[in-house]
Amino acid sequence: MLIGIPIFEGLTALDAVGPYEVLSRIPDATVIFVATSVGMKRTDQGSLGLYADADVAEVPHCDVILVPGGPGVEEAAQDERLLAWVRAVDKTSVWTTSVCTGALVLGAAGLLRGRRATTHWLSVERLAGLGAVWDASRVVTDGKYMTAAGVSAGIDMALTLAAHLAGETVAQAIQLSIEYDPQPPFQAGNSTDAPPGIVDLVRQVARSTRP
Amino acid sequence: MLIGIPIFEGLTALDAVGPYEVLSRIPDATVIFVATSVGMKRTDQGSLGLYADADVAEVPHCDVILVPGGPGVEEAAQDERLLAWVRAVDKTSVWTTSVCTGALVLGAAGLLRGRRATTHWLSVERLAGLGAVWDASRVVTDGKYMTAAGVSAGIDMALTLAAHLAGETVAQAIQLSIEYDPQPPFQAGNSTDAPPGIVDLVRQVARSTRP
Repeated sequence: MLIGIPIFEGLTALDAVGPYEVLSRIPDATVIFVATSVGMKRTDQGSLGLYADADVAEVPHCDVILVPGGPGVEEAAQDERLLAWVRAVDKTSVWTTSVCTGALVLGAAGLLRGRRATTHWLSVERLAGLGAVWDASRVVTDGKYMTAAGVSAGIDMALTLAAHLAGETVAQAIQLSIEYDPQPPFQAGNSTDAPPGIVDLVRQVARSTRP
Repeated sequence: MLIGIPIFEGLTALDAVGPYEVLSRIPDATVIFVATSVGMKRTDQGSLGLYADADVAEVPHCDVILVPGGPGVEEAAQDERLLAWVRAVDKTSVWTTSVCTGALVLGAAGLLRGRRATTHWLSVERLAGLGAVWDASRVVTDGKYMTAAGVSAGIDMALTLAAHLAGETVAQAIQLSIEYDPQPPFQAGNSTDAPPGIVDLVRQVARSTRP
């Protein structure tokens, strides 16, 4: 089973690495990091480089494709070579998935028209602009398309995906292996439950730093 | 504020990247990935390379040191140059921290003797063998030493640490930015609550693959 994760400059590290940590532990699964140019990609916060081992041309088929998000999506969603690869791989994939604003890449590739999907809470309007029907769930499944909300939601999505791919016993064993028994110290993980002042603060910071 | 994350061959990716995603978002914080040799380090599952930008010799002081774990700890905990750096940086650090079996590196450096600490649930006996007093909490603080349980616990620890370093408003804004509103699909995240068959399975796999 081949799982392809396309990466690009300015991706959000955890979008890719959370699911990688889960999916790479499925017996017989091989995860490959691909890009439109082989080599190190700097993640959005700048001080971490992830390495893409293969050019997209070397990977014509994946059983699962998982597109991470991040500020780099602005350019990635306009990279015609990447979009062409996503469309081509989607033709034979078992699952086509995204985390966070990775959904905007799937949307730009034309794969989410009329489908229920989700993305980072700050980008739901843009997702709708690409023809998707936003669903407020943390992990949304519509046919073979599975999308996760922002950043850390990729871990929940990957465990759900692992259960589909390899059964619940394997998925639970992976959850225990990575000791995924989350205990967030604050109630601030979504824009409905977080204190309104925090929601406003994050919106302001996003407005000031995003194009 | 400088936050140093030492990495090495065979680290567990999420141990480092979960906290990175949180701590790198603290205003004025700089996270640097260091190693005893600059360059790409393969994570334990093989198909992801993380890049270490600096040699430990270039980073004589960190406000925070965060040591990730993984199977590579077997060698890292015997790398005298790494241990000497950890000891030296600890002398002036504000926080000395670890995720998962990264605690075994702190322990090998002699920093956890008589201190309460935690690690991955499969390694608590080894932690005790290094003189630490195991505490069953997911995140354990003893003075300036903060240790997290397995893999994903680093995210919870990093949010706790962010609150200490930059205040609760910043920590909550980061939590909302990464949409950390975890919804694990199964109740299998710790060895007490997971189905006994799953616990046995993970123990068996660990025995067969670890030295």
